[in-house]
Amino acid sequence: MIIDKLYKRVEKLGHVCLGLDTDLSYIPEEIIKESSSNREAIVKFNKGIIDATLDVVSTYKVQIAYYEALGIEGLLAYKETLEYLREKDAIIIADIKRGDIAKTAEMYAKAHFTGDFEADFITLNPYMGMDTIEPFMEYLEKYDKGIFTLVRTSNPGAKDVEYIETVKGEKVYEEVGEMVQELGKKVTGTCGYSSIGAVMGCTHVDEAVKMREALGNTFFLIPGYGAQGGTAKEVALYLKNGNGGVVNSSRGILLAYKKDKYKGMSYAEAARAESISMRDDILGWCK
Amino acid sequence: MIIDKLYKRVEKLGHVCLGLDTDLSYIPEEIIKESSSNREAIVKFNKGIIDATLDVVSTYKVQIAYYEALGIEGLLAYKETLEYLREKDAIIIADIKRGDIAKTAEMYAKAHFTGDFEADFITLNPYMGMDTIEPFMEYLEKYDKGIFTLVRTSNPGAKDVEYIETVKGEKVYEEVGEMVQELGKKVTGTCGYSSIGAVMGCTHVDEAVKMREALGNTFFLIPGYGAQGGTAKEVALYLKNGNGGVVNSSRGILLAYKKDKYKGMSYAEAARAESISMRDDILGWCK
Repeated sequence: MIIDKLYKRVEKLGHVCLGLDTDLSYIPEEIIKESSSNREAIVKFNKGIIDATLDVVSTYKVQIAYYEALGIEGLLAYKETLEYLREKDAIIIADIKRGDIAKTAEMYAKAHFTGDFEADFITLNPYMGMDTIEPFMEYLEKYDKGIFTLVRTSNPGAKDVEYIETVKGEKVYEEVGEMVQELGKKVTGTCGYSSIGAVMGCTHVDEAVKMREALGNTFFLIPGYGAQGGTAKEVALYLKNGNGGVVNSSRGILLAYKKDKYKGMSYAEAARAESISMRDDILGWCK
Repeated sequence: MIIDKLYKRVEKLGHVCLGLDTDLSYIPEEIIKESSSNREAIVKFNKGIIDATLDVVSTYKVQIAYYEALGIEGLLAYKETLEYLREKDAIIIADIKRGDIAKTAEMYAKAHFTGDFEADFITLNPYMGMDTIEPFMEYLEKYDKGIFTLVRTSNPGAKDVEYIETVKGEKVYEEVGEMVQELGKKVTGTCGYSSIGAVMGCTHVDEAVKMREALGNTFFLIPGYGAQGGTAKEVALYLKNGNGGVVNSSRGILLAYKKDKYKGMSYAEAARAESISMRDDILGWCK
């Protein structure tokens, strides 16, 4: 199962999930100059990052919004980036945050588990309820795919809905987490984790131990490291025996070449150095 | 403002929001046969529906999932459908249900308020909080666009999250509704409604009067009519003096040509007849 593949990949390569949220403004001028289109520039930049990091990161998370923003041209770059990742046997998380009912959910499953935009995992939004997640189950089994459902995100606005206190004495995100864990039991791999994971931001560390215990079989996709304030020490609290989660970094890696400490390196070399530094930072707290 | 344009359109043409959730299986065989690609068939079918209904429906809601499911080819059909709608000065609601933080939200705004996929309104998912809606504000004013935020959807699973009871003695969707209404005050048109509307399913009629009163300045996008069980009598409870909402129907109209009562009509003629019937059904309850 895909979750077992992910588990092994983390065991071997560490926890870094490299976010390919590629904005045109992130791309070095020389690549822009030598490319005949935005599409070509984006794909060239992404391939450079991928080639330099394949053996030091466990997963790639591609944020589709950055590609949608450029219309058809951007989505062609998205398609080509995913193709390249598949070719390299990388594990792809498509960060699409979709969520819709019945037939529409099936359309999203078809869109992102097959065809031009095929990925291994997709992110989903649970606001409309579990009947917006359930239609994906059939596809998880049929195509050996996985999901990360939003549970507790790392942005300040998470307080508005996710943190509403419920009559059960919990917060909304805790109730959502329980529903996700329950649904996930149907697709548990030999590693003990389910192919239905959860997005669990690492910016509120007081809840880390509680969530790790409550959702024992749920693999976490952890945003919030670095730019958003989460540290490796905090991240480690969301892991179990050094596994059970991947930690996203996007701009921190894509723009590493602009940092003083990587001066003189190419953007790809700097991305590699930053990925290794992040990997080792997290591994250091997993012992 | 776009909300004033929508208000006037409803006044003139009624409440029908025609959902272009175009699945290949909905398209009559003769169109498939005479088309050289799926893309061509979809666009041809959509144009036929649009031409036949422009003077009897107030808005068109295009569900992007159906197009994403076909990859790049489907998104080209999506682009061409939106182009045609813009050419005809139709009001377009892009049903994309996106929702993400800061920079990513801006990317979605750019994607769906400008360029290839430009629409008048988009639907958004509020699970991650108001800081996923706020980045759109700037674009609403700059490009004269609007939003419909999910509040209370029409699917059975709505009970899972939207209906969680909170310590305030409300339901999650009620608290979300209040936040949406509050944010919307900044972009209120002369018609008294805001360019930030709410998706409000008409399948739980007991809450209709309460929601209409609580969200007095919020225009509703109302799913659930017909196939999902909502009647015109119920829909009317979500309206105020015969305005303040549009009511979606997708398959009911797109597949009208398969109904016995429209036998002998083309798919476009049947779509027109069904749209008129729905329009008059709702108008009849607005007196």
